[in-house]
Amino acid sequence: MADGITPRASDYSQWYLDVIAQAELADYSPVKGCMVFRPHGFAIWDLMKTDLDARFKDTGHVNAYFPLLIPVSFLSKEAEHVEGFAKECAVVTHHRLRAAEGGGVEPDPASKLEEPLVIRPTSETIIWHMYGQWIQSWRDLPILINQWANVVRWEMKTRPFLRTAEFLWQEGHTAHATREEAVAETKQMLDVYEAFAQNILAMPVVKGVKSASERFAGALDTYCIEALMQNGWALQAGTSHFLGQNFAKAFDVTFQNTEGVREHVWATSWGVSTRMIGAVIMTHSDDTGLVLPPKVAPVQVVITPIWKTDAEKDLVLAHADKVKAALSPEFRVKIDARDTVKPGAKYFEWERKGVPLRLEIGPRDVAGDSVFAAPRTGGKKFGIAAATIRDGVRAALDAIQAELFQRALTRRTETLRTSVDYASFKEDVEKGGFIQVYWCDDAANEATIKEETRATIRCYPLEGQEQAVGKTCFYSGRPATHVALFARAY
Amino acid sequence: MADGITPRASDYSQWYLDVIAQAELADYSPVKGCMVFRPHGFAIWDLMKTDLDARFKDTGHVNAYFPLLIPVSFLSKEAEHVEGFAKECAVVTHHRLRAAEGGGVEPDPASKLEEPLVIRPTSETIIWHMYGQWIQSWRDLPILINQWANVVRWEMKTRPFLRTAEFLWQEGHTAHATREEAVAETKQMLDVYEAFAQNILAMPVVKGVKSASERFAGALDTYCIEALMQNGWALQAGTSHFLGQNFAKAFDVTFQNTEGVREHVWATSWGVSTRMIGAVIMTHSDDTGLVLPPKVAPVQVVITPIWKTDAEKDLVLAHADKVKAALSPEFRVKIDARDTVKPGAKYFEWERKGVPLRLEIGPRDVAGDSVFAAPRTGGKKFGIAAATIRDGVRAALDAIQAELFQRALTRRTETLRTSVDYASFKEDVEKGGFIQVYWCDDAANEATIKEETRATIRCYPLEGQEQAVGKTCFYSGRPATHVALFARAY
Repeated sequence: MADGITPRASDYSQWYLDVIAQAELADYSPVKGCMVFRPHGFAIWDLMKTDLDARFKDTGHVNAYFPLLIPVSFLSKEAEHVEGFAKECAVVTHHRLRAAEGGGVEPDPASKLEEPLVIRPTSETIIWHMYGQWIQSWRDLPILINQWANVVRWEMKTRPFLRTAEFLWQEGHTAHATREEAVAETKQMLDVYEAFAQNILAMPVVKGVKSASERFAGALDTYCIEALMQNGWALQAGTSHFLGQNFAKAFDVTFQNTEGVREHVWATSWGVSTRMIGAVIMTHSDDTGLVLPPKVAPVQVVITPIWKTDAEKDLVLAHADKVKAALSPEFRVKIDARDTVKPGAKYFEWERKGVPLRLEIGPRDVAGDSVFAAPRTGGKKFGIAAATIRDGVRAALDAIQAELFQRALTRRTETLRTSVDYASFKEDVEKGGFIQVYWCDDAANEATIKEETRATIRCYPLEGQEQAVGKTCFYSGRPATHVALFARAY
Repeated sequence: MADGITPRASDYSQWYLDVIAQAELADYSPVKGCMVFRPHGFAIWDLMKTDLDARFKDTGHVNAYFPLLIPVSFLSKEAEHVEGFAKECAVVTHHRLRAAEGGGVEPDPASKLEEPLVIRPTSETIIWHMYGQWIQSWRDLPILINQWANVVRWEMKTRPFLRTAEFLWQEGHTAHATREEAVAETKQMLDVYEAFAQNILAMPVVKGVKSASERFAGALDTYCIEALMQNGWALQAGTSHFLGQNFAKAFDVTFQNTEGVREHVWATSWGVSTRMIGAVIMTHSDDTGLVLPPKVAPVQVVITPIWKTDAEKDLVLAHADKVKAALSPEFRVKIDARDTVKPGAKYFEWERKGVPLRLEIGPRDVAGDSVFAAPRTGGKKFGIAAATIRDGVRAALDAIQAELFQRALTRRTETLRTSVDYASFKEDVEKGGFIQVYWCDDAANEATIKEETRATIRCYPLEGQEQAVGKTCFYSGRPATHVALFARAY
């Protein structure tokens, strides 16, 4: 099916790839693991960026930009960090090419670098090196910096948006005088991510904290938001790390406090990436193609004029222009006036591309001074009078946004299971969805469960941990230390 | 002078570095040639980006994103391109680090890539590879894509913003069915850059076309905007390339035209970079520090409350809040309410940071329900009534923007020289400024002049070329082919 979309029920992974291809969101590149963001896919990222950037600024952050290349020795400075990130990264060893024998070019041996550089897999090391030069006293704190950047983590098995060698993200890196302030910042940014995911992406998330095995390399605590995809797998959609004084100690960053005493600085880092686009696709789309929440839809409304005669064409196009003018600039509107494509084919095309609302305008709609509205989420088509077009479209888009959130929330709630023993847990894992259990924190048991079921602890939810008190671990039978959410995950 | 700024007259290069350091625009990084964009510097880029991006969209372009890494073989596909860009670029040869004997990490020999990758020095090759897959028929044209990205060109001698190994830029890459359409696109984007430079950066530019020796590697024609810095050196601030069918042929990109015949596609590319920030600094700043045109000033207005007693403090801060509320969100306003810093020190700090307008508010201003305004460009301070504060501030900022442009234009006009022979040309080069000559296009003579005077042909200005007809080349005495602008340049 060259032009079709594999149904979710028959092959979920292929469905995901088909949705992306049919909506022209992304393409494969000639470089293993690196993808191309096509305009329609990149526009979604641009909308996410604009919204998030405003939220970061509202919470007092500023943007900066640090170098792409990091000396390899920097990675080794924080003991756990090097374990986590040195393994798979792109290493720059030469700074010049020369003509090769037999044609082409090759690295010039004379240009070998004294110290190799890695392309940043994340920027803690280079940023903390710089913070060491900028921070002297309590007056220099806090530093609340965010960076929008590309990063590279060499990946063998890749999947567009969800796991690619190069990806785009933002990374916040903050420096504070006290532990309390840094912890508060970590949690504040988790709340920012939660609000963004739920209100903008229409994607319900669970806020939680990671177990030690799933923690960011170098963090004392990793907080996360976890979403649930339609196939019952979880997806980590954003993380916020409390780094303690680890990086400050590794890079010797101290400040003179108000009493004149030198102390190490406290740190956080937090990030979301283009992976969010994959999460949105997998949360909302259907067998017809992409479904986008209106707030991140590059085109929110497509107007499809319908005509038979030239006279009708003039009439409906004039009406379409009028409607578009009334909707702009509040909404992102496109008129599809192509006469080489039949209306039915246009409908399918814009459905595949995830446009939330289609407005059909035929001669009868012109006569009635109205439009005929078809939401991408289905349901009955309905008319909107031209006189109230803005209110009508706003209400329709708000309803779609709310419906998408509600559908995803219902799906998550209906598939939530609570396993009481490992036997039922194993059965529940096969059904998909989050599994909530009482759990005694234990890395070895966690590893065994992952090995045997491919399910991992997605998080210890921030809410409801008190319920674990006095309970028994479903796996070990020991006293429970946490309520844990398990799931198979991307 | 640790805290001071070297005067332009005594050491222009050091003055430039001092302005950047004192305004906290940028910092050196531990990676040779790579700089750190500090928040105040990055905010200028963000403002430039937002304005340019809107201009690109208004002219029908969309954003996309292509991979950072390019197979080395791609660079060799276009013969001139490889000459221009293979020389100095960062080469990725390994994809993993391993623990080194004696501590630290090193590239793992087992992870050597079969084909090395280069970090993009520019993206023509990877983009034209993708266009080859997207373009089949005339219906797929034009493609009007822009990319905001980081690029790396290994540089030995670097200078913040003006020449760095890694820099940020935008690169437009368009594909067209006809030569005429591609040429029109090339010129349209040059006009976009001119309008941006003059109206937003307050920087007068000359539009022109490069001589063959200064052309982009792989282009048939390179158009440019050339600005003049305060020391009399020129700076290329943006380029727009007509690439003909070179890349389409190298990557075999053809389309079926409306007659069903396959033809090669026509191409353009165009870009401006963070170098623009350097140009702005060098065009407008003075011995007191950074001067920014209001349209790209991250802080356009700083309010400095002045008080002696606590009662006065409450009064002036309340008044400052009221003024700020009246000015937001139209203007980017900051109140400097620090009580650890004296007013005079605040004035110097915001002057060094290039804030265009300072509003002083003391008890007398509160009583008079007004503010006292001090433009960064000097001149008499003046009062603005609180009741008309928005109009007053808008008029003041517009005047500053206009004044900066006019000053730069006057400087350029007053230093423009027309040399009639090589002897006077050599003298004129030492004086700085553009030198306009009648010229017979000749790469060898151009090279000799560059060698002997360090002056290069900045461009053949688009306007006034007809004046060369019937004239004699100032250097060779042969019939002139062009009016040429020479200068020493960054």
